Order: sequence, then C-alpha cells, then structure tokens
Amino acid sequence: MKLNVYLSGEIHSDWRAQIIEGCQKEGLDISFSSAVTNHDASDAAGDGLGDEQNSFWRDHKSAKVNAIRIKHLIENCDLAVIRFGEKYKQWNAAFDAGFCAALGKSYITLHDESLVHALKEVDGAAQAWAQTPAQVVDILKYLTTQA
Amino acid sequence: MKLNVYLSGEIHSDWRAQIIEGCQKEGLDISFSSAVTNHDASDAAGDGLGDEQNSFWRDHKSAKVNAIRIKHLIENCDLAVIRFGEKYKQWNAAFDAGFCAALGKSYITLHDESLVHALKEVDGAAQAWAQTPAQVVDILKYLTTQA
Amino acid sequence: MKLNVYLSGEIHSDWRAQIIEGCQKEGLDISFSSAVTNHDASDAAGDGLGDEQNSFWRDHKSAKVNAIRIKHLIENCDLAVIRFGEKYKQWNAAFDAGFCAALGKSYITLHDESLVHALKEVDGAAQAWAQTPAQVVDILKYLTTQA
Amino acid sequence: MKLNVYLSGEIHSDWRAQIIEGCQKEGLDISFSSAVTNHDASDAAGDGLGDEQNSFWRDHKSAKVNAIRIKHLIENCDLAVIRFGEKYKQWNAAFDAGFCAALGKSYITLHDESLVHALKEVDGAAQAWAQTPAQVVDILKYLTTQA
Amino acid sequence: MKLNVYLSGEIHSDWRAQIIEGCQKEGLDISFSSAVTNHDASDAAGDGLGDEQNSFWRDHKSAKVNAIRIKHLIENCDLAVIRFGEKYKQWNAAFDAGFCAALGKSYITLHDESLVHALKEVDGAAQAWAQTPAQVVDILKYLTTQA
Amino acid sequence: MKLNVYLSGEIHSDWRAQIIEGCQKEGLDISFSSAVTNHDASDAAGDGLGDEQNSFWRDHKSAKVNAIRIKHLIENCDLAVIRFGEKYKQWNAAFDAGFCAALGKSYITLHDESLVHALKEVDGAAQAWAQTPAQVVDILKYLTTQA
Amino acid sequence: MKLNVYLSGEIHSDWRAQIIEGCQKEGLDISFSSAVTNHDASDAAGDGLGDEQNSFWRDHKSAKVNAIRIKHLIENCDLAVIRFGEKYKQWNAAFDAGFCAALGKSYITLHDESLVHALKEVDGAAQAWAQTPAQVVDILKYLTTQA
Amino acid sequence: MKLNVYLSGEIHSDWRAQIIEGCQKEGLDISFSSAVTNHDASDAAGDGLGDEQNSFWRDHKSAKVNAIRIKHLIENCDLAVIRFGEKYKQWNAAFDAGFCAALGKSYITLHDESLVHALKEVDGAAQAWAQTPAQVVDILKYLTTQA
Repeated sequence: MKLNVYLSGEIHSDWRAQIIEGCQKEGLDISFSSAVTNHDASDAAGDGLGDEQNSFWRDHKSAKVNAIRIKHLIENCDLAVIRFGEKYKQWNAAFDAGFCAALGKSYITLHDESLVHALKEVDGAAQAWAQTPAQVVDILKYLTTQA
Repeated sequence: MKLNVYLSGEIHSDWRAQIIEGCQKEGLDISFSSAVTNHDASDAAGDGLGDEQNSFWRDHKSAKVNAIRIKHLIENCDLAVIRFGEKYKQWNAAFDAGFCAALGKSYITLHDESLVHALKEVDGAAQAWAQTPAQVVDILKYLTTQA
Repeated sequence: MKLNVYLSGEIHSDWRAQIIEGCQKEGLDISFSSAVTNHDASDAAGDGLGDEQNSFWRDHKSAKVNAIRIKHLIENCDLAVIRFGEKYKQWNAAFDAGFCAALGKSYITLHDESLVHALKEVDGAAQAWAQTPAQVVDILKYLTTQA
Repeated sequence: MKLNVYLSGEIHSDWRAQIIEGCQKEGLDISFSSAVTNHDASDAAGDGLGDEQNSFWRDHKSAKVNAIRIKHLIENCDLAVIRFGEKYKQWNAAFDAGFCAALGKSYITLHDESLVHALKEVDGAAQAWAQTPAQVVDILKYLTTQA
Repeated sequence: MKLNVYLSGEIHSDWRAQIIEGCQKEGLDISFSSAVTNHDASDAAGDGLGDEQNSFWRDHKSAKVNAIRIKHLIENCDLAVIRFGEKYKQWNAAFDAGFCAALGKSYITLHDESLVHALKEVDGAAQAWAQTPAQVVDILKYLTTQA
Repeated sequence: MKLNVYLSGEIHSDWRAQIIEGCQKEGLDISFSSAVTNHDASDAAGDGLGDEQNSFWRDHKSAKVNAIRIKHLIENCDLAVIRFGEKYKQWNAAFDAGFCAALGKSYITLHDESLVHALKEVDGAAQAWAQTPAQVVDILKYLTTQA
Repeated sequence: MKLNVYLSGEIHSDWRAQIIEGCQKEGLDISFSSAVTNHDASDAAGDGLGDEQNSFWRDHKSAKVNAIRIKHLIENCDLAVIRFGEKYKQWNAAFDAGFCAALGKSYITLHDESLVHALKEVDGAAQAWAQTPAQVVDILKYLTTQA
Repeated sequence: MKLNVYLSGEIHSDWRAQIIEGCQKEGLDISFSSAVTNHDASDAAGDGLGDEQNSFWRDHKSAKVNAIRIKHLIENCDLAVIRFGEKYKQWNAAFDAGFCAALGKSYITLHDESLVHALKEVDGAAQAWAQTPAQVVDILKYLTTQA
C-alpha cells in the first residue's frame, strides 16, 4: 500500500528528516511533501510581485502564495502528520489540522506531553497522537506493510 | 439580511459581549453562537462519562464532546469571527479557522497588530482582519443593512 | 441551542423513552426522531407493494421502504445516538454509525462495557461513548444549555 | 476494465483468498485491498503509542490507527465486498457497509441465507448479495470482461 | 414527520391528484410539488424570450426555463415519486430518476407491470416500485406516521 | 412556490427596481437580494479596518468584505439574474455567473443583443437569456405560479 | 488532451463502433467505455446469484449488478455520449443523462431530428446535440487536438 | 512537485508562450492547458452540428462545445492563471475566475495596474496578482522547486 503523507508544522527541528529517513530505511512506499520549510524563502514568497511598505501586506502576499502549495498538497495527501514544538505560536499547524478535519483527511499529531492540554481540540480530531518521529515511522510501517 | 455568526477563540476578555451588545444597539438581525466559554465546564465536558486517571483521555473526552457543538455551529453559521489574544496558544481558534477555510465559510480575524506575522496563514484565508470589536460591529452593520 | 437528534438501534428496551423524557424534564430544545420502532410494522413495510414468496425479497422491500425514512432523518439530524444492546446482531445500528461517519455527522454510542471490544471501530469514529441514557441526557443538556 | 476492490469483514475463514485466487485464475485486472487481517496485530495497532491500563482506550487507539487505513482504502476503492460469517458481532463490517452507502460506493454482501433477516438493512443498500466467493468472482469477471 | 415530495412524470392521467387527495384524507403532513403540468404552457415556457423559427431552439429554450423549476424542486425534495404511463417516451421522467439517483435522493417508481423490463435500470436505483397511487399513499402514510 | 433570487451586475440603471416592482404587482412569493449597490459605500467597505495608501489594497479589503455578503447570498439563492449593461467591464457580474455555474445554481442573463457574442460563454451556462426586466418578471411568474 | 468517454444508450445499431473507429482513424487519445452491450448477457447479469421465479426480481438483480459497472464508468468519465434510437423506450439512456447532469458531467446527445421534442429536457441539459456518429467524432477531434 | 496549470483569458498577446517557455527554461515539472485559443476555430466549434441563421444560437452551440473542454480542464487543474488584457470585455476570463473560486481552485490573475479597480472582485478571490508573465514563472518555480 502506497501513501502520500503531508508533513505540517514546526520547521526548527529535524523531525521531517527523521520520519523520511526512518521510512526509507524500512523501504516503505511513501511519498512525503511539505510546505516550503526555508523560513526566509517562505516569508519572501510574494516579494517578487512587488514591494510592500506595510508588513501586513507583505506577509499577506507571501501567505497566499504559500497557500497555493499547501492547499494543493493537503487536498492530495492521504494522511498528514502535524508537528507542534515547544516554541512559537505555530498557528499555521493548527490551521492545517482544522483544514484536514473539515476535509475528512486523517492526521496524526506529533508533540510532547507538555502540550496535551493546549492541543486537546486538535488531538480530539486526530487519528493518533505520537510523541516521537520513530512512533510515526512505526505507524506508517504498520499501515502500509501489515497483512 | 440576517446572519448567523459564530464567535471563536479567546475566552479571557469580553470581546464577545462587546460585539453582541454593539450589534444589539444597532438593532442588527444577527444571531450569535459560541463554543462553551465557561473554562471549567468546558474542561469537564466529558467527566460525566466516567473518570479518567490519565489527563490525556480526560481532555480527549471533553474535547470530543465539545466538538459536537463546535462542528454543528460552524457548519451552520454564515460567518465566523475568530479572536486571538496575546496570551496562550489558542490552537483551537486556529483549528476553527482552518475548518472554516476548508468548508468555504467566510471568517474575520480579530487580533492586535503584534500578532500579524504569526497569524499570516490564518489571515491569508480570512475575508478581513479587524483589530477591535467595534470594527467587527461596523462590518456586520454594513453587511446586513447597507442597501 | 436547538438540536435534532436521531435515535438509532435497539428496540427491545426503553432507552429512547428515557432519553426523551429526561430531556423533557430538563426543558431542553431538542427534537428526536427514529426509524419505525414497531418491529412487526417495520418488517411489513413493503407488504402493501405486493406479496413475496421469497423471504429475501420481502425483507428487501421492507428494508428499502424503511431506508427512505432512515436516510432522510440521518441526513437531517445534527447528532445521532446509537444504541447497542446485549442481544441480537443489530447490524442496522452499526450501518447507521458508518453512514453518519461518512457524512461527518457526530454520533454518540450507548452500550455496556461488555461490548467495548466488539464495538471498537464504531466507538472509534464516535464523539462519545455513554453507558446509560442518563449520561446521554447530561451531554445533551450540556451541549444545548451551557454558556 | 480495471477495478479496485476492498474486502471487508470476517477474518476467520479464507474467503479473501478464494476471491483473490479465483480472479487471478481468470486473469482479471483487479487489485484487492483489506484492513489489517492479522487479529493480534490489529488489536495492537496503537500499542506503540504508549501503554494503556484501560482496555477501552487501548482498543480506541488501535481502532483509530486502523481507521486511517480502512478509510483511505474505502474512499479509493471502486467496489467493496463485505463478508458476514456466522460468528461474532462483526459490527465493523456493517459499519463499513454504512460508510460505503453514504459515499455512494457500490458494495456486494457475502453471507449465508441464515443471516438474511438480520442483514436486511445492509443488503437493502447493497448492489448484490452473494452466498459464495465463487459467485463474487463470477460477478467481478462479468463486470470487468463482458463486452 | 413532514416530507416534501416531488411528483415527476406522466401528465395525462390524474395520478398526482389521487396521491395528493389520498394524503389529505389521511391528514398527512406532506407538501407536494411538480414541474409545470399544463402541457401547452410548458411547451411555451420560453416563448416570451423571443420567437424561434427552428423548433429545436423553441424546445430548448422552454426546456431550460422549465429546468430552473424542476432542478430547484428536486434538489429540495425529500422524496420523489416518478410515474411512467403506457404511452409516450417519457424520457424526462427517466432523466429525473437519474438525477435523483446521482444526488442520493430516494425515489419511488409508479408504473404497471408491463413496463418492468423496460424500466429495470430505473427501478434498480429506486427505493420502491408501486403499481397504484393508493400504494404510494400507503407508503407515505407509513413513513410519516408509524411510530 | 417561493424563490430566493439574487440580482447581480449593473448598478447604473433601475433594472433591479423594475424586476422587484414587477413581481410585487403580480403578487409573487419571491425574495430578492443583492450585493451592496451603493457604489461609494461598496468601494469603502473595508475603510473602517484601517487606511491604505496603496489603492490595490484599499480595493482588496473592500472587495473581500463585500465578498462575505455576495458569497453568502449566492450560496443561499435559488436563482440568480445577472445583468450586463453597455458600459464598464462588469467583471464582477461574469465572476458571479461563473460562481453560480460551478455551484450548479441556475441563472438568467439580462442584456441587449449587442452583447451576445461577448457573453457567449456566460450565456452558454445560463438557463435563459432575457433582454428586458419585464421578460424576467414573466419567467419568474411562470416558474412560481403556473400549475 | 486525453479524454475518457462513456458511450450510453442504444445497442441495436453500430454507432459505438463508428465513433470508436472514427477516432482511431484520426489517432485521437480517447478511451471509450460502455455498459455491457451484449443484450442477453446483460439481462442475465444476476442469474449466477440464484434463480428467480418472479421476473421483476430477475431484472432487478441484473440491473443492480450492471449498475456497479455503469455508475463506476460514468463517475470516472470526462464526457458521455448518449444515443437514442427510433425504437424502444431506452429509459436507461435518459436515466444516464440525468445522472450525468446531476454530477455536472458533460454529455452529448446523439439522435435524429424526429426525437427532438420528446428529448427536449435531455437535450436541454446536454452540451451538444449530434445527429450522426461522424459529428461526434468531429467534436471529439476538435476538443482533443485543436490548439 | 508537479502542477497542472490552466491558462485562461486573453488570446491576443503571447503571454501563454512566455509562461510556458519560461517554465521550460527553468526545467519545471508543469503541464499547461488552455481553451482553444484559435479565435476562428473557437467561434466555429459548433458549426459542424448544423448551420444556424440566428447568431445567438451559433454562438451558443460553439460556447457549449468549448465548455466541455474548459470545464474538464479547470476541474482537473491544480492552479489557474487568468489573464486580462487592455482590450475587449473578456467576460469568459472573469467567468473562469468565478468558476475556480466556487470550486476552491487557486488562481493567479495577470493584468496591468490600470485594471486593478475594475478587477477588484476577481483579484479579491485570487491567491496572487501578477503584472508580468515572468512573475508568474517565478511563482511557479517557487511553488514547485523551493525546499
């Protein structure tokens, strides 16, 4: 069984690489996708369309360019993994979770126990809560290879 | 024109009351709804279904009971107003925004300028960004009464 | 807040009456609906369309007439309560649960602890599991009256 | 004509193998998929995410992990075959049937005559009722090869 | 239980009146709707938009004006009754049946036994086949009043 | 039969008033709605959310506030009438037509013969083309009152 | 541009072959599909599931087996061509047209001028009316090869 | 990341070629599609179906044939680029934009600053506004190649 998995959320740790490499080692038939994770490039996504003096509109243009990619990838994925780290607001990750929930897309959350109470609504609509990338790899292996 | 407006997000300030009272003063034909905003009641929503020793499952049960109401109200609203305050993670508010976006429901965000960069994805899919409850009342008045 | 609640499943105990009366005592604004619960009438739903010598076709005709009502009520409800008793196969109740799940309709299961393992897939897609009608009444009260 | 066929239900007899091998002998262009049919593995699907002392939550976690696979496969199949045996409650099979019905997915039921009355609602929404795997193979051959 | 019932098909006999009056006598809470059944008015529905010399375009304009009403009523009905008489092609009735089927709207066919083979695909997607208006009234009574 | 009719397009002639008054004279059960047709108010719809020095963003904010109303009204109408005048680009009217087409909403175009070639794609997806408000009134009368 | 084209309707003339061969001669990138067009095989589609003494049920079983294929092919086609001949009721062809219309699938009708009035509702929802298979080939060539 | 991009609008300048060649130079994995852009061929799309003396019907037939292709391509694209030039009404381009908006398809507008006010509703639902084909190429490169 093949799966397209969208990886959403935190860009300050290597959780994406851990999951991707973990699946490669297991030889799983999974393709991964993500939003642009280069922070500076992402913030500048709309800059080529003209300069903005107002930071709201600079952010707005970039966010809407990025949304073309994010929406396309979420709508075409079979499963999302949504990571919340300890720092930052990460509202975009929660936004992606709500987007998945409304579309009926399954998603797995990935976060530490310390965030359980703050993420209860996001976890409530998730199919699973994992605490480590290795757990995610195990689930993906189970889903795609168990007879 | 009548509107059903769902009010999502922060429960620690009186922004809901300001919007509702502002619309009442203007005599607008708008009905408002919200998730349960009593913090303790909301956290205990699932307690009647049996005690849990594990806090994850206590939260999980309550979140899923609350989701019955939230999902029903969002799916039946014409517009959502989604408030982000300065404190707390408020991932549920961003989750609601993503849910609205995927359903094609219009929403207005309500937050200070300081949160603009962190909320750029959430604002990117919004129909408007307001900074004060009075601005929201003005938009609602315009939408429902302007010829 | 008003809710339309569909009551699915077991017809051999008075759980429907307990929920309906419990909600009436609390003065909740809830309307309830059900499939035809008169067993003989339900089995004979299609008999007026012509006699059948083959019991499969007699059942088939009645099931399809009943499905007009069931499908209509589930598609128009805001929430379903799905009851499984100790006896009988009750596959229609599980069918209704799957139907709700695919439509994104919230449902609450109502069954004893002894059925937990057998119902794990049905409970897995439910918003709550209750063991008594009184618990269901409490959730409905919370959902429709808590500020 | 190619078909993706999802095989749902009973895991205690070799009906899946009979259908798959029957189609292979006929050289049909059909790909089959199933939920995890290894009973122990399926029950333990969520164990890697942390131990649970409460059996409800152990089942719940596993059921939701399994649902990622089941939902994905049903949503992507062209046809489901849903098998009910003599033993066990098999509510998950009826749940899958309801899920298919709500999505407008065609399904064929496979069960003995003794279950006709108990399965009348499930059969009522089915496209066909077969009593043997060989009959299913014949239908699949007809659907994919008859000019 | 209230139902909106759309009556489609034959306009040369009084089957609509028989069903409506039968339901009124029973005091059922059912509202009925139909396409324009005045044959001349229906054929002339588009004439006010300008004369046509080509009969195809005259028919086309009228058919599309009538389709505004038919589509609106079918999309908003809870159940359709689709009548086929002995004479004429009545392709519009079969078209309405296909439209209902694709929308997942329940429909009942009403026709004599002589048409069974010709209508097998239309009956195959129906919830019931009735041979007389009185049978339809009985089903509607059962659906809306049986406890 | 009752209809909710959305009136889209040109704001520089009195075609809306002609249709509304024509229907009132006929006593038709039709409710009409429109975008804000006060040109200055519409252009200023977003001004209360903060000044913009860049005219693109001023227009953008107002357009998105107006879209809350337009989208809501189109999604809830039963039929749209879309008017194109001789002057101006009126791309918003064509946009509304495309929006209706994708939603499967019936619409009638209202324009002079001189615009036929330029509007062929918009007319191609319409249910009718009218040249005068009186013709629209006639169609609405026919649709809602003809037996 | 590649197209999947579903060919519905009359099975007593060689119109399918004319279209398929015409497209092959032009080298068009089109794949065609159809219901089972072998009349006897189609009528017997359900016979393997058990004998029926009642001809209604024999037809019913076969129609529902055939519907698995037809529904699958229509839902996955890009365009349908629906042929009406001079003889027979051909209600299944009109049913397919209504099914396409409700799904928003484009279809082309293929019939003689003599049937124009009887088919006005079916033609009213079509994208084109052709009178000969050669005209259909020309349209398919235009759609898939014109720059 | 691969994208299917639909290019809608103006056919009197070489903006399509600029975008396609720009992407080819960058080696992007993008497939492009368009309506028929040969003006004479497009206007004559329906001529093979029979002569029309009335220019409305000639346009109507051609527009509906062309709509088969346009609707198919828009429904299957991942992103649309919609170009408005200085001349002509270009209502079909705005119609396509509205169609995309209702389907939730992302689109980018491409037009000069002089058209900003007239296109505010169309730009309001767009994900980006570009002024040159080179800017579109840059966005497509960013979307498909940025890590």
